[in-house]
Amino acid sequence: MSDAEGQTRTRTISWEDPHAAAEAGRSLSGIEYLQKIIAGELARPPMGALMNFSIIEIGEGRAIFGAEPAEYHYNPNGTVHGGLAAALLDSAMGCAVHTLLPAGAGYTTLEIKVNYIRPMNRDTGPVRCEGTIIHAGARTATAEGRITDLRGKLYAHATTTCIVFRPGTEATKN
Amino acid sequence: MSDAEGQTRTRTISWEDPHAAAEAGRSLSGIEYLQKIIAGELARPPMGALMNFSIIEIGEGRAIFGAEPAEYHYNPNGTVHGGLAAALLDSAMGCAVHTLLPAGAGYTTLEIKVNYIRPMNRDTGPVRCEGTIIHAGARTATAEGRITDLRGKLYAHATTTCIVFRPGTEATKN
Amino acid sequence: MSDAEGQTRTRTISWEDPHAAAEAGRSLSGIEYLQKIIAGELARPPMGALMNFSIIEIGEGRAIFGAEPAEYHYNPNGTVHGGLAAALLDSAMGCAVHTLLPAGAGYTTLEIKVNYIRPMNRDTGPVRCEGTIIHAGARTATAEGRITDLRGKLYAHATTTCIVFRPGTEATKN
Amino acid sequence: MSDAEGQTRTRTISWEDPHAAAEAGRSLSGIEYLQKIIAGELARPPMGALMNFSIIEIGEGRAIFGAEPAEYHYNPNGTVHGGLAAALLDSAMGCAVHTLLPAGAGYTTLEIKVNYIRPMNRDTGPVRCEGTIIHAGARTATAEGRITDLRGKLYAHATTTCIVFRPGTEATKN
Repeated sequence: MSDAEGQTRTRTISWEDPHAAAEAGRSLSGIEYLQKIIAGELARPPMGALMNFSIIEIGEGRAIFGAEPAEYHYNPNGTVHGGLAAALLDSAMGCAVHTLLPAGAGYTTLEIKVNYIRPMNRDTGPVRCEGTIIHAGARTATAEGRITDLRGKLYAHATTTCIVFRPGTEATKN
Repeated sequence: MSDAEGQTRTRTISWEDPHAAAEAGRSLSGIEYLQKIIAGELARPPMGALMNFSIIEIGEGRAIFGAEPAEYHYNPNGTVHGGLAAALLDSAMGCAVHTLLPAGAGYTTLEIKVNYIRPMNRDTGPVRCEGTIIHAGARTATAEGRITDLRGKLYAHATTTCIVFRPGTEATKN
Repeated sequence: MSDAEGQTRTRTISWEDPHAAAEAGRSLSGIEYLQKIIAGELARPPMGALMNFSIIEIGEGRAIFGAEPAEYHYNPNGTVHGGLAAALLDSAMGCAVHTLLPAGAGYTTLEIKVNYIRPMNRDTGPVRCEGTIIHAGARTATAEGRITDLRGKLYAHATTTCIVFRPGTEATKN
Repeated sequence: MSDAEGQTRTRTISWEDPHAAAEAGRSLSGIEYLQKIIAGELARPPMGALMNFSIIEIGEGRAIFGAEPAEYHYNPNGTVHGGLAAALLDSAMGCAVHTLLPAGAGYTTLEIKVNYIRPMNRDTGPVRCEGTIIHAGARTATAEGRITDLRGKLYAHATTTCIVFRPGTEATKN
């Protein structure tokens, strides 16, 4: 990638077939599955490779992603596009829900709601996005998430509502 | 990019210095600015290049983006990551607001709220994302957006709240 | 109720035992149940009596409520409290979902998201709140709603996500 | 109010002219104004009288309301209408923002987003609703809120986005 102004920049991304990880995930609990991704035993999902973010830590009901805002995330206004924060928050909140699910269970995100507090740019440095469970019920779960930089400055916060499919219940579309 | 299962895929993206377009935008009305991006006279913003989506049509209070869901958008569950829909909807709704702003005015997205109706995958084909203004006020604006495929099937819908900065008013942080 | 400034105002509300209507509802489709409330054959629910709003019209996937903002709805800022719009929108959107449910099915509102466009006050006159289905799925439904006055001026808009319980599926908590 | 099933219940509410409190509020900081309402020196707003909820405690960036769910809050499904939680959360989150404003400043709620976790009913007992600031900026503020019963059980949670008008800045409509 060139840093010179006015020149075309390029970046080559690479990713693995995502079905292998998805397949492996079916026989693991959420926490086991996510630990294998953190350990590098299962491939980082393609969207993480594309946007250059990774899951870096999990616990029961929480998940932390890391990212580094770059010029390739920019919108037409000269700052990072809101899609980066939304993707990070969606990932961290969904994984926070996933950490509480046993093998065979799954979830789908019904909705996310993201508040943008201040823009990120290529000088922001590394950011972390922490998702935390609020409610884990039999059929639904809610979680919240926050994006902060290394000094704890807040860039965005969010909530989500997920529907949960448990073993023994038929899993269908929304 | 290889389609063979189990092999590493690669994709090289390229983008232009985004500050040139942002600079040009300062002396144009929103609708003039967006028309120049559609016409290719101003560079597609980097995030559009990264996620492979483009603005394809605008009118007063509306903007339409097009995208084609691909494997590089996938999440760990074997479908397209929710970040693609969020980025598309954020863009289309923000641009719908932008179409109503005169030269010198600007806006910032305060929040987006996205409902996921059904997952996209690499067999979905092209999708369009239409943003439409709901309320354009002196200081704030709201808009809604929907993502549909070529047959009109709904994949996601959203709303947004933006704060608007008008010429003659000092523009500051949120 | 006295209109004189500086004096205490009073209002006496009355309502019926809500369990009778809820009981009757169990053997009716959503549309039949709501038609009986409109026709006065089943009691208006207590919250409608308290806040003085009523369901006035339904169709497949839509429901309209009417209300008249009054001083007893006021917040400390001298305009109508946001709780009136939220209650109206929650009712209209939930009933829009309910119109599509057969006898024996039910729904629960998982979340509502309300945008306040301009405040209502006691000079606003009658308002109508229309809820309209966006997506009616097997397990979830989404709807939107808008509050307007008699001239069509917009006061608030909203979306909702509901979970749907269908006959033959065990109904449990969220 | 009669408790016998099948009989009409009545309740008489009373409230004070809300303009007196609103007027007094203009020369007080948010925290001074809310303290006078808690102390009973300024009238409880009409909506609080109508729905029977009160502000009971404030601090910098936080506000707590108390309420007791009753039959007069019921919806047609035999539980408390979602409008009670929405009104409580709107109040608590808005007041949390208000506690941080100097005399002469004001705020308007742009949007609220409420997640319903479990229904309240007349056996729930007293609930408390706590609003807490997330971000207090020059032009906007965000806050979150939660409703719990005496044992800490969660009934609903929410977030809000407010626009802030500061002294010396012209206050206009959204």
